[in-house]
Amino acid sequence: MATPALTLSSLNALPASTFVEALGEVFEHAPWVAEAVAPGRPYPTVTSLHDAMLQAVRQAPPERQMAFIGGHPELGSRVRRDDLTRDSQAEQGGLGLDRLSAGEFERFTRLNAAYRAKFGFPFIVCVRRHTRDSILRQFERRLGHDLDAERAAALHEIGLITRLRLVALADGPGLPVTTGRLSTHILDTVTGRPAPGVRIALHEIGLSARALLKETVSNADGRTDAPLISGAPLRIGTYELTFHMGDYFGGAGFLDIVPIRFSIAEPEGHMHVPLLVTPWSYTTYRGS
Amino acid sequence: MATPALTLSSLNALPASTFVEALGEVFEHAPWVAEAVAPGRPYPTVTSLHDAMLQAVRQAPPERQMAFIGGHPELGSRVRRDDLTRDSQAEQGGLGLDRLSAGEFERFTRLNAAYRAKFGFPFIVCVRRHTRDSILRQFERRLGHDLDAERAAALHEIGLITRLRLVALADGPGLPVTTGRLSTHILDTVTGRPAPGVRIALHEIGLSARALLKETVSNADGRTDAPLISGAPLRIGTYELTFHMGDYFGGAGFLDIVPIRFSIAEPEGHMHVPLLVTPWSYTTYRGS
Amino acid sequence: MATPALTLSSLNALPASTFVEALGEVFEHAPWVAEAVAPGRPYPTVTSLHDAMLQAVRQAPPERQMAFIGGHPELGSRVRRDDLTRDSQAEQGGLGLDRLSAGEFERFTRLNAAYRAKFGFPFIVCVRRHTRDSILRQFERRLGHDLDAERAAALHEIGLITRLRLVALADGPGLPVTTGRLSTHILDTVTGRPAPGVRIALHEIGLSARALLKETVSNADGRTDAPLISGAPLRIGTYELTFHMGDYFGGAGFLDIVPIRFSIAEPEGHMHVPLLVTPWSYTTYRGS
Amino acid sequence: MATPALTLSSLNALPASTFVEALGEVFEHAPWVAEAVAPGRPYPTVTSLHDAMLQAVRQAPPERQMAFIGGHPELGSRVRRDDLTRDSQAEQGGLGLDRLSAGEFERFTRLNAAYRAKFGFPFIVCVRRHTRDSILRQFERRLGHDLDAERAAALHEIGLITRLRLVALADGPGLPVTTGRLSTHILDTVTGRPAPGVRIALHEIGLSARALLKETVSNADGRTDAPLISGAPLRIGTYELTFHMGDYFGGAGFLDIVPIRFSIAEPEGHMHVPLLVTPWSYTTYRGS
Repeated sequence: MATPALTLSSLNALPASTFVEALGEVFEHAPWVAEAVAPGRPYPTVTSLHDAMLQAVRQAPPERQMAFIGGHPELGSRVRRDDLTRDSQAEQGGLGLDRLSAGEFERFTRLNAAYRAKFGFPFIVCVRRHTRDSILRQFERRLGHDLDAERAAALHEIGLITRLRLVALADGPGLPVTTGRLSTHILDTVTGRPAPGVRIALHEIGLSARALLKETVSNADGRTDAPLISGAPLRIGTYELTFHMGDYFGGAGFLDIVPIRFSIAEPEGHMHVPLLVTPWSYTTYRGS
Repeated sequence: MATPALTLSSLNALPASTFVEALGEVFEHAPWVAEAVAPGRPYPTVTSLHDAMLQAVRQAPPERQMAFIGGHPELGSRVRRDDLTRDSQAEQGGLGLDRLSAGEFERFTRLNAAYRAKFGFPFIVCVRRHTRDSILRQFERRLGHDLDAERAAALHEIGLITRLRLVALADGPGLPVTTGRLSTHILDTVTGRPAPGVRIALHEIGLSARALLKETVSNADGRTDAPLISGAPLRIGTYELTFHMGDYFGGAGFLDIVPIRFSIAEPEGHMHVPLLVTPWSYTTYRGS
Repeated sequence: MATPALTLSSLNALPASTFVEALGEVFEHAPWVAEAVAPGRPYPTVTSLHDAMLQAVRQAPPERQMAFIGGHPELGSRVRRDDLTRDSQAEQGGLGLDRLSAGEFERFTRLNAAYRAKFGFPFIVCVRRHTRDSILRQFERRLGHDLDAERAAALHEIGLITRLRLVALADGPGLPVTTGRLSTHILDTVTGRPAPGVRIALHEIGLSARALLKETVSNADGRTDAPLISGAPLRIGTYELTFHMGDYFGGAGFLDIVPIRFSIAEPEGHMHVPLLVTPWSYTTYRGS
Repeated sequence: MATPALTLSSLNALPASTFVEALGEVFEHAPWVAEAVAPGRPYPTVTSLHDAMLQAVRQAPPERQMAFIGGHPELGSRVRRDDLTRDSQAEQGGLGLDRLSAGEFERFTRLNAAYRAKFGFPFIVCVRRHTRDSILRQFERRLGHDLDAERAAALHEIGLITRLRLVALADGPGLPVTTGRLSTHILDTVTGRPAPGVRIALHEIGLSARALLKETVSNADGRTDAPLISGAPLRIGTYELTFHMGDYFGGAGFLDIVPIRFSIAEPEGHMHVPLLVTPWSYTTYRGS
C-alpha cells in the first residue's frame, strides 16, 4: 500500500473548502458528505471521521441518499471510463472486472439488470474484499433481499469501500483495520525442525479457473520471508497452497506436492495455515 | 471367558425342574423367575429367553419384585460369604470389592446406609461393567433419584447382570453382546510403516491409585497379538496407555514414554486408540 | 477381473499340445515357452508354473531369447492391430496408449527410436502397472542402462506381464499376488465417529491432464462400500482424492473440498489413505 | 532473575582490586582468574570477558588448574555450609541437593567416592541446567571417561557454571544466552479457535517422584500469560504437561486429562509444546 498523502491533523486544520476537495471523492460523486462533516472537525481519530461521514449519509434526506446510492457505477459493466471515479476504476480493475470474459460479462449483465429492476439502484459491493466467485455468490444472495434489507446492505458495503479509500488517503491515529494477513509455517516432524527451502505456491481457486497469486520458498524458520498476503484485505474466496514436499524429502514417501485448499471469509483477519509433515503424513489446521 | 456348559437347545429340551435348577441362580435367590419362563419354551435365541425372564420380573406382584430386589447383596460389604450366590462373589471379587481399604470400606458403608435408608433396598449395579471409581460416581448420582426412577435403575442393572450370567451359562444363537474390545495400533510416520517391538502398558487410573492391567509389545503390524481387553465388558473408567517410543526411536527426539489417557463409557463397545508418531510429534484419536 | 476359464489342475491334466495351445499366448509370440514346461507337469501352484516358464526363457539360447524379446510390440505405436496379441491390445488400450495425442505420440516415437537404436529391441514394460507418466519416466531412466542391465529389466517386465496374463487364464492354488487395493476412511473428530455421506472423488494426476477415476460416497463406517481401486494392479503414478467436507459440515469452517495428493509406487500393495477431519483441521497418512 | 548489580562498563572502569573483588567468586575459590583478566580490560562484551576468564583457567599451570578443579564442593554432600561459596549453596539448594533422601544421599555418596577415587577431584556439573535424574545419568556416564576426557568435561561444566554466575552479576552488551523458555498453546479444532480457560499443570517426572512445577490456566489466546518456564535454564530432564480438556469440553468425548510427556535436552533452547485438540483426538509436536 502506498503511503497516504495526508494526515488527520492536516485534514483537521484545512480550510473547509480544501478539506472537501481532499475528501470529496471518498464517497462516490458526493462531495456533500465531506461538506456535512467539515464543521465537526477536529476529529480525534480517522475512525471517528469516517463514522461521521457514514452518519451524514444515513441522516441525509431519502431522495439525496437514494441519489447517492444510485450514483455508483454498475459492477463489471463496460461503461465509459469517464463515468467512474478513479477509485472505482482501480477497485474494479484490481479484480479483473474490466476484463471479463464474454460468459462472465453476460452473467454480470443479467444480474445487474435483475438487480436494478428489483431495487432501482446498482449493486454495490466492496470489491477489494472479494474474488469474482464471492461477488457472484453475494450478488445472487442479495437479489433475494427486500428493499429495506438491501438498502442497508448497500450502505454497509459503502462503509467498507469508503473506509478503504479514507485509509489510503489519510494517515493518523485510530486507523480502522482494513487489511488482513495470510501466512504459513512448515514443520518437518521427522527432524522436529522447521523445513527450509520448500517451494510454496498460492493459487486462487475460482469456479472456472485457477490463478497463481504467489510463488515463494520457505526460509530457515520454515516460514516465508514476507506473509503470503498482507497490506490489503484478504479477498473472500477459495485458495490453495501447494507445498513441494517431495523435493524437500528427496523423493521418498508417498507425498510429492501437498495441496491445502481453504476458504477465507474474514478479509481483515489473520489466517495462518501451518503444515506438520513427514514423507508419509501431514496435519494442517487454521492457526492463529 | 470359559465356554458355557449348556446350549440353548438343551435348555429348551430339559424337563422344567432341571431347567429351573440350571438357571435358578441367574436371578439372585429367585428360582421363580426360571419357573415362570419354563412353560414358554422353546426360545429361539438366548436373547429372547433373557427378555422373557426380565419380563417375568417386571410383571411380578410388587411385593415379590421388591423382595427380589431386596435379596441382592450389599455392595462392598464384608458379608459372610454364604449369603452371596457364587456369581455375586465372583463379580464383586473381580473388582476387589472384597478387599477394600479401610477408607473405601467406610465410604461404601456410608453410601450403602444412606441408600438403604432412602430406598429400603440395597444398591444394585452390574459391577463387571465398572471400575471402583465409576461405581462410586454412579452410587452418588443414583442417591439423588426418586423411588420410581431408582427402582427402574435397579431393574436395568439386574438386566445387565443377568445377561452376563446367562451368556456365561448358555451357548446358542442370538447371544446378546456382553463384551467389549480395546485395541491399539502404532504407525511410525517417519517410515510410513507400522511400528513393531514397541513396549505398551495399559493402566487403570483410579482416584487414588493406578493399576497395571496389561503389558505387551507391538507386533509386525504395529498392533498387539491379542486385543488389550476383550472377552469381557470394558469397565467404565479412566485408562492410560503408555508407549515406549524412546526405545523404539533409539533415544532421539523429545518423546520417550508417550502416555494416552482416555475414558471408556461403553462397556460393550469397541475402543480403538491408534498412535501416529515420530520422535517429535504424535496424533491419537478414538478410532473404530 | 473376469473369472479365469481354466484351473491349474486341468492344465496339469491336459495333453501337451492342448496345454501349449492354452498358454501359448502368455509369452508373446512364443509358444515354445509353454512347450518347454509341459513335460515338467504337474505343477503344485500357479506360481511354480510361472517360475518354470520364466526359467525356460532365461535358459533359452541367446538368439532365441533375443528373438523373443524383439518380438514384443512397440509401445504406443499405431501399429496395425493384427501385429499385437489380444493381450497386448487390451493392455495398451487400458492405458489409452492407442489414443495418444499428437504430442505424446511424438514423444513415444522419439523414445522408441532412441531405445531401439541403442538396444536393438523394443521397450517392454508391464503397462497395466503404470500410468502414462510413470511409463515415460521409466522409459527415460532405462535409456541410461547398459545392454546387460536393460536385458535384465526387459525380462523382469516380461515376468510381470506374463504373471498377470497367467493369473487371468488359470485359477488354482498358489496364485501370485497381482492386484493392489486403494481404500480410504473418514473420521469426524468433532463427534469421534466415522463420517457418512461424504462425496469422494479419485483422480489420476498426469503431467498434462487430470482424469476422474471414480466418484463415490462414504458409508456409515466412513468408508466406501467397495475399495476405490481393487482387483487390478495400482498403476504407478500420482493420484488425488477429494473429500467434499464443506457439504458434510454444513458450510462451517475453513475447509470445503479437501484434496489429498499422493503417489503410488507399489502396484501390488495396499494403500490406505485415511482422513481425520474437523471443519478447521485435518490429518492424513499412508495407513495400512 | 534479579537484575544484575553491575554493568560491563563499570566493570571495565573499576580499579583492578575492586574488579577482582567484584568477580572473585565467579570462579570457585579462585580470585586469581579475575586477577589474570583485569589487565585485558576493557572487554567489549560480557561474552568476551567470560571467554578471557575461561582462557586464563585453561592456560594456568597444571597444578594450579587441578587445585582449582579440586576446590569445587562435592555434589549432594551434607558438607558444612561454610565450605561452599554462596553461589554453590544456591545452585545445589535449587535442585534440592541439600535435602536428599537417605537413598539418594547414599547413591550420590557412592558415586562421589567412586569418582574421586578414579579422578582425584570432585564431580563438577552445572546443576542449574539439570534435574536430579539427569545429574545421576551424567554422573554415571562420566565415570566411564578417561582422565583427559573428564578434565575437559569438568572445565566445560565450569564454563557453564561461571557463565550463569557472570550473567547474574553483570549486565551489558553481548550477554551469553543462559536461559530457556517452555511454552504451550491450545487450539480447539472443533471451533478453529484458541482454547481459553483450560487448566494446565507442569510436572517434573523423576525416576522415583513427580514434582509439580506450575499450575496455570490458558488465556484468550490459548496460551499462558507467562511462559511455563523462562528466565532460567530449562533443566535437562523429563516433564509432563497435563491439560484438563474434559472440563473445557463439558465432559463429552473420550478425553479428560490429556498428559504430554517430553524430554528437555537443551537448557538454553525454546521448547514449544502445542496441543491441537477435539473431545476425541489430539496432536502434539515439538514446536518452535
